[in-house]
Amino acid sequence: MIFDCPEADEAAEGLAEVLKRKGLRASAAESCTGGLIGALITSMPGSSEYFLGSAVTYSNEAKESILKVPLGVIMEYGAVSGQTARLMAKGSVRLYGSDVAVSVTGIAGPGGATPSKPVGLVYIGVSDGICARSERFVFKGDRGDVRTQTVLEAVRMLTRFAEERD
Amino acid sequence: MIFDCPEADEAAEGLAEVLKRKGLRASAAESCTGGLIGALITSMPGSSEYFLGSAVTYSNEAKESILKVPLGVIMEYGAVSGQTARLMAKGSVRLYGSDVAVSVTGIAGPGGATPSKPVGLVYIGVSDGICARSERFVFKGDRGDVRTQTVLEAVRMLTRFAEERD
Repeated sequence: MIFDCPEADEAAEGLAEVLKRKGLRASAAESCTGGLIGALITSMPGSSEYFLGSAVTYSNEAKESILKVPLGVIMEYGAVSGQTARLMAKGSVRLYGSDVAVSVTGIAGPGGATPSKPVGLVYIGVSDGICARSERFVFKGDRGDVRTQTVLEAVRMLTRFAEERD
Repeated sequence: MIFDCPEADEAAEGLAEVLKRKGLRASAAESCTGGLIGALITSMPGSSEYFLGSAVTYSNEAKESILKVPLGVIMEYGAVSGQTARLMAKGSVRLYGSDVAVSVTGIAGPGGATPSKPVGLVYIGVSDGICARSERFVFKGDRGDVRTQTVLEAVRMLTRFAEERD
C-alpha cells in the first residue's frame, strides 16, 4: 500500500528538490485522490521542511467551508471544473499559509459520470495565492488507475509551477 | 501505489459497512500518515456517502489554525501525544461537521525521535465531538512500515468507535 513505483518516487524527489532549492513551502487540496497527494509527498523523510499539509475535501460543503470555494461556483460550473480546481488551489494557499499549492478534482469512477463529464475527467489546479491556473485531463482505467495518474500528474505540475516562481 | 493488500481492503470495507449501517459520516485528521487514511477510505467506490474528508496537518501551525489544537497543548505535551491526538480528532469533527473522526500523530522516522519518543511512536485518537479518546502504539519497521500499520490501526479504531455509537 506504499508508493513503491519508481515514477512516484521520482516525482516526489523532483518536487522536494525544487521546493528546497527555492525555499518554498507547499500544500495541497484534494478531492478524488482522497489524500494520496499528501501521502506521496510525505513519503519522503524530511518532507515537513517544505510540506505543510493537504485539505481533503470530498464534499461540496467542505470545499466551501474549508477552502472557501463559493457554492455558487460549484453549482454553476460543477465540483469537477477548472474554476473549482483553481479556487481549491488558492484556498489551500490561504488555509495553510503556503507559497504554492496544487489541487485536484475529478471523477475517479465507477460512479459519478455525466454525459459531459466522463469517468477519468480530472482538473488539476496550481496557485501561489495570487495567480491560479488549471489543466484538464481524461485518464483511462479503473478507479485506482485514475487516482494514480492524477497524483503523479499533480506532483509534476506543482513541481513545474514551483520551478517558475522567483 | 494503490492499497492492494487484503488487510487494507478489509479495513476499508469494514468501516464502510458500519458507517452506512449506522448512517454516520466520518472525517480524519492526519499528521505522520500525510493523507493515507483518507486515501484508503476513499479507495472504496461510493465513499462520498459516508466520508467527508481529511485534514492533513503536518506543521504545528496547521494543527492550531485548522484543527484548533491550542499551541500551548502542543508545547506542553508535544505534537506527538495523546492530548494532541484527542484534540485533533475533536477538531476534525468540528471542521467537517462529521459524526465521528479519527486522528493520528506520530514519528514515522527516520528523523524526529527524542529520548522519550522513539521512531514508531504513534497516538491514534477518535472523537464524536463530545468525547474523545486515544491509544498509544509503538510500531516497528521503516517509515513506510510505520505509516502502513498506523493507517490500518486508525481505520480499525474508527470502525470500533463508530460501532459503539447509538
